[in-house]
Amino acid sequence: MKGFVFHGSGRASWQDVPDPAVKEPTDAIVKVDAVTICGTDLHILKGDVPEVRPGTVLGHEAVGEIAEAGGDVCTVRPGDRVLVSCITSCGRCRFCRESAYGQCRGGGGWILGHLVDGTQAEYVRVPHADLCVHPLPAAVRDEDAVLLADVFPTAYEVGVLNGHVRPGDTVAVVGAGPIGLAAIATARMFSPERIIAVDLTPARLEAAHRLGADAIADVHEAPGQLVADLTDGLGADVVIEAVGVPESFEMCTRMVRPGGHVANVGVHGRPATLHLEDLWIRNVTITTGLVDTYSIPTLLRMAAAGRLPTRQLVTHAFPLHRMEEAYDVFSKAGETGALKVVLGVAQHAEVAVPAT
Amino acid sequence: MKGFVFHGSGRASWQDVPDPAVKEPTDAIVKVDAVTICGTDLHILKGDVPEVRPGTVLGHEAVGEIAEAGGDVCTVRPGDRVLVSCITSCGRCRFCRESAYGQCRGGGGWILGHLVDGTQAEYVRVPHADLCVHPLPAAVRDEDAVLLADVFPTAYEVGVLNGHVRPGDTVAVVGAGPIGLAAIATARMFSPERIIAVDLTPARLEAAHRLGADAIADVHEAPGQLVADLTDGLGADVVIEAVGVPESFEMCTRMVRPGGHVANVGVHGRPATLHLEDLWIRNVTITTGLVDTYSIPTLLRMAAAGRLPTRQLVTHAFPLHRMEEAYDVFSKAGETGALKVVLGVAQHAEVAVPAT
Repeated sequence: MKGFVFHGSGRASWQDVPDPAVKEPTDAIVKVDAVTICGTDLHILKGDVPEVRPGTVLGHEAVGEIAEAGGDVCTVRPGDRVLVSCITSCGRCRFCRESAYGQCRGGGGWILGHLVDGTQAEYVRVPHADLCVHPLPAAVRDEDAVLLADVFPTAYEVGVLNGHVRPGDTVAVVGAGPIGLAAIATARMFSPERIIAVDLTPARLEAAHRLGADAIADVHEAPGQLVADLTDGLGADVVIEAVGVPESFEMCTRMVRPGGHVANVGVHGRPATLHLEDLWIRNVTITTGLVDTYSIPTLLRMAAAGRLPTRQLVTHAFPLHRMEEAYDVFSKAGETGALKVVLGVAQHAEVAVPAT
Repeated sequence: MKGFVFHGSGRASWQDVPDPAVKEPTDAIVKVDAVTICGTDLHILKGDVPEVRPGTVLGHEAVGEIAEAGGDVCTVRPGDRVLVSCITSCGRCRFCRESAYGQCRGGGGWILGHLVDGTQAEYVRVPHADLCVHPLPAAVRDEDAVLLADVFPTAYEVGVLNGHVRPGDTVAVVGAGPIGLAAIATARMFSPERIIAVDLTPARLEAAHRLGADAIADVHEAPGQLVADLTDGLGADVVIEAVGVPESFEMCTRMVRPGGHVANVGVHGRPATLHLEDLWIRNVTITTGLVDTYSIPTLLRMAAAGRLPTRQLVTHAFPLHRMEEAYDVFSKAGETGALKVVLGVAQHAEVAVPAT
């Protein structure tokens, strides 16, 4: 089969690789119908994630069809259409028993396209399939479903739920990339009073507005002052960090009200400064987290009911074999306007959605 | 009357001051029977809290008797024995309605001995008396009750409750001064599997052991390794920071397990480094907070039932008029072994409890 193989910092290619096979009776082999590319995949390509060995097939998000199931797999059968979670869970360790699947100690956590071969291929071996694939309702199309493998559960669990968004809240979302946009969309489910989106890019701020942000602020135009003005000087109830650099995290800690929450979703490569000399007295809660994907069944029901604006995040689509081109478009998002790039949908027809 | 008056950085004295009077119908005047000195008072004396104006009577913890009550005060009468909370609450603002009294926007919060004259005096005016004084059960003696004005509610609310200590947890308490010791004592109420105390001082570690720490670690002897060894390499479920310097906060973030809580109680004067490059993926929750004292009624019931080891924190007692000497003993805790220094108890008899 073909797969997108990492060859070390800066090098990867769509090439022949061995077909995956069932190794454990809890494995399933999934024929991949749709995948997407995550910002984390770009970090891997840059060599920022050293535990990814050269030779690994990348990707941790997919929709497909069960091609083969090991003898112990009991919830899906060959031919079933499924969503593959970005998180693998043994279901038995202490963390899995508390739904903290991202922290699984039984060989799971984030392993696809990281510690084992991933989803950016024609087929993928999915360990612990009973817990890690989700049968797909017919009403949810591939290009919508694939955003529920990682983007939407990450924004919802690590941003909205960890941040404890409540009705009437002022929610600031710093970073309006795919995760920030999904955070805006899922924060709306809790009827906040207002959502304020902060970003560098006019196109992303427009997308934030379309997805439900009530106010938008360019990062260079005193977004903290806007938040203060809108909240009688108090600050936001919840601030969601969806960038992953120290400067944006520090901005979040300045925007939050006394007693408020800062939910970090961004993937960080450097330490930040925590101004405890201001924060110690302010009753602030800061959370971090890798997604657990416990919310996928809920999000699938929402998607089936047409209640999630998944499609609005997809700006580009390619057939699977044009993976290298898709990476190029995604990695140059500043020029291409890419939000999510989806591959393999609609029998591999090419659908270039115009950037906004 | 006499009171302990701040005169600017490094200067304060026990001296004549005007008797306080009822200014608002919600005020009460309390005749002070017992007070204590807080680490925050030392910060004020050093000039670290610039909003304290010279001429202010210090102190925010007291036990006493209602001498006079304004016309709108309806829960206490002259002659009632009361505990004065360190936090003043208007009871009407948004934050008070959510029990976040420490963040009161109606003229309260931490104001005694900070923005208005405090408790280290023969009499004190207590604004919003209905919400800020607590009638004292006869079973609770002054020297126990005075520790429920600040020390115990701070340790319990900002450390144990914000940290979500649960049965079976491993709890690390970094800093075994009065707050850390009260955190150990109140963490035990949730039946953790073990409490590990970390400090610099052998005497404080011994006190921690007496108050219920199952393991103690000198800060110079790899306390993080001890925590790891005791938790199968995972880290503590809850880490309580009770020091207030960047180094100890950073130690706390290294000691916590994936999915665990770091509850900051320490008063910080400098920023800390937050290693988001490690923490983003670990599902860690960090909380900060000023005490709200919503737990005082509960703690008073516990104290009346003999369930709080308040007395073990009191190492020195003085009559009120020896305030300057008491500050000296408390500020030289490294030499004197002082934990809490109480003034005014037992009709001003001097009781010097030996340091451990």
